[in-house]
Amino acid sequence: MPAVGSKCRVCRQPAIIDLPRHNANFCGEHLLQLCRRQVEKAIAEHDMLARDDRVLVAVSGGKDSLAVWDILTELGYHADGVYLGLGIGDYSDESGVYARAYADARGLALRTIDLRDEYGYDIPTAAHATRRVPCSACGLSKRHLFDEAARDGGYDVVVTGHNLDDEAAVLFGNTLRWDVEYLGRQLPVLPARNGFPKKAKPLMRLTERETAAWCIVRGIDYQVEECPMAAGNKHLAYKAALNAIERDSPGAKAAFYLNFVEKMAPLLARTTQAAAGGLHECSRCGAPTTGEVCAFCALRDRVSGRPLVPVDVVLGRVRRHGRGRGDAA
Amino acid sequence: MPAVGSKCRVCRQPAIIDLPRHNANFCGEHLLQLCRRQVEKAIAEHDMLARDDRVLVAVSGGKDSLAVWDILTELGYHADGVYLGLGIGDYSDESGVYARAYADARGLALRTIDLRDEYGYDIPTAAHATRRVPCSACGLSKRHLFDEAARDGGYDVVVTGHNLDDEAAVLFGNTLRWDVEYLGRQLPVLPARNGFPKKAKPLMRLTERETAAWCIVRGIDYQVEECPMAAGNKHLAYKAALNAIERDSPGAKAAFYLNFVEKMAPLLARTTQAAAGGLHECSRCGAPTTGEVCAFCALRDRVSGRPLVPVDVVLGRVRRHGRGRGDAA
Repeated sequence: MPAVGSKCRVCRQPAIIDLPRHNANFCGEHLLQLCRRQVEKAIAEHDMLARDDRVLVAVSGGKDSLAVWDILTELGYHADGVYLGLGIGDYSDESGVYARAYADARGLALRTIDLRDEYGYDIPTAAHATRRVPCSACGLSKRHLFDEAARDGGYDVVVTGHNLDDEAAVLFGNTLRWDVEYLGRQLPVLPARNGFPKKAKPLMRLTERETAAWCIVRGIDYQVEECPMAAGNKHLAYKAALNAIERDSPGAKAAFYLNFVEKMAPLLARTTQAAAGGLHECSRCGAPTTGEVCAFCALRDRVSGRPLVPVDVVLGRVRRHGRGRGDAA
Repeated sequence: MPAVGSKCRVCRQPAIIDLPRHNANFCGEHLLQLCRRQVEKAIAEHDMLARDDRVLVAVSGGKDSLAVWDILTELGYHADGVYLGLGIGDYSDESGVYARAYADARGLALRTIDLRDEYGYDIPTAAHATRRVPCSACGLSKRHLFDEAARDGGYDVVVTGHNLDDEAAVLFGNTLRWDVEYLGRQLPVLPARNGFPKKAKPLMRLTERETAAWCIVRGIDYQVEECPMAAGNKHLAYKAALNAIERDSPGAKAAFYLNFVEKMAPLLARTTQAAAGGLHECSRCGAPTTGEVCAFCALRDRVSGRPLVPVDVVLGRVRRHGRGRGDAA
């Protein structure tokens, strides 16, 4: 919260938010302006979108994906949404309501895919059956189905709501292990190649506090809860570590991620891009894969049609035994 | 502390220390064995020392520099010490006593250099005059005078007591900024070149808890206090952040530093080594430098002969205004 009586840096009207890394306070209108400009800057610097691109936004019902959909629409892009029903109890039910309400109120197109109805499993069941952290099956399912939805719908690019905090936390995890392969791929835009659609992260320059403020000022209702299955994962621990550093040195988090993108990613791209060969079509679904069957179809083979496992059972397991392998980062 | 009744992994005698990253407890004798082996491994993997090298150990009187001197001597290396009197009040006086006592009790050669007597300044005075953080003038003075002592004494290599925690914290700071130039130079051994002596960090695989335990088991008295002028510097904040991560994931800190050395440093070395040209001798002292006068002689010009400033005055300034530029990392 800004100090009582603080003024917007731009117009001197009462401020609604303080942004220590910009060393300034902003009113609602000029917060929106800042967000729009940061998104425009990200799009321009990284060739994320062309003016006439057909854009598919991966919408979760949370603040980030609704904010990016809203900003792109406001900036005049043609952006449709796709929502994936993950079957994570009340959390998913409510998230779907927020996504649908946003789209309907604005007359935007939102396709819904339901893991249970269309693929015979949900995330709690997959986590239980694979004995891995829930984020593992969830990330795999999302990547695969968003890519597929983009191919099916003839979209030019898949946009996700990853913000600066998300990207910095993933970067932090990959850096702690110096996973050079992952580091080389952690870019704000990935070009279309080998059957994968182009992917872009226009919120790469905005923090989660800023995307939340965008939604509040714009009157967008969103899912405020964190996913219950993410509780205790390393991604959240990395966010906490970076937040502690940011409190001591405002701007340190943005510098960490943006300097990586500018200075380090180009060095790494040279060493890791050679490994892209050897892809062919999954014999089951046609998606690009290095194996006979892609990881998504392999997951379906393992978990589809099993009796559904409630969220609480999986969370009980997590609490009893700690987190498994393959954490979210 | 190990749990009551816990046993040494090697001999099943009562343990004196638990090392979560090794998932084991150790008695005093086998803790020493572990330390010796980690140092031997570091020396062998990175070609730090040859059997007949004349080694100069930079001794501060703290646990790390006394431990590395002790371990190298025990392993049969010919290692002399050099102690630099920094003039940081009681802290420096006591540190000097520990260094001298260690050397005298073992009949080892220790050269002492005193900043005030020989160069007309001390660290508090330099920090006050330059209006930078004390660690800046301190690091500059140490690097220069240890290099000079090695050249003057005909030593093959300068050894410092930097441990795994130190190296991981410096790496963390450089990584937060993606300072590619600094990252490329952060190696456990630097070969002799351009008039600079070879430098090595044989404790790179040991934590500060392990070097402290080495000293305790071996009966070495050392300066336990942290340097009062380092209070609040970012290096300590980075150590705290890494310690929080280590508590959640034992071994994460070692993986961060050792994976960097193994996987990332070789990639970076290619991009940064080109910049070594353009060095010549300082017109004042003969040390290699890119300017007319080296940074150490420039510092002396600025601060030598000034009235000495007590530690408390500098610390008062630090507390009032926060830290200046050029922090320790």
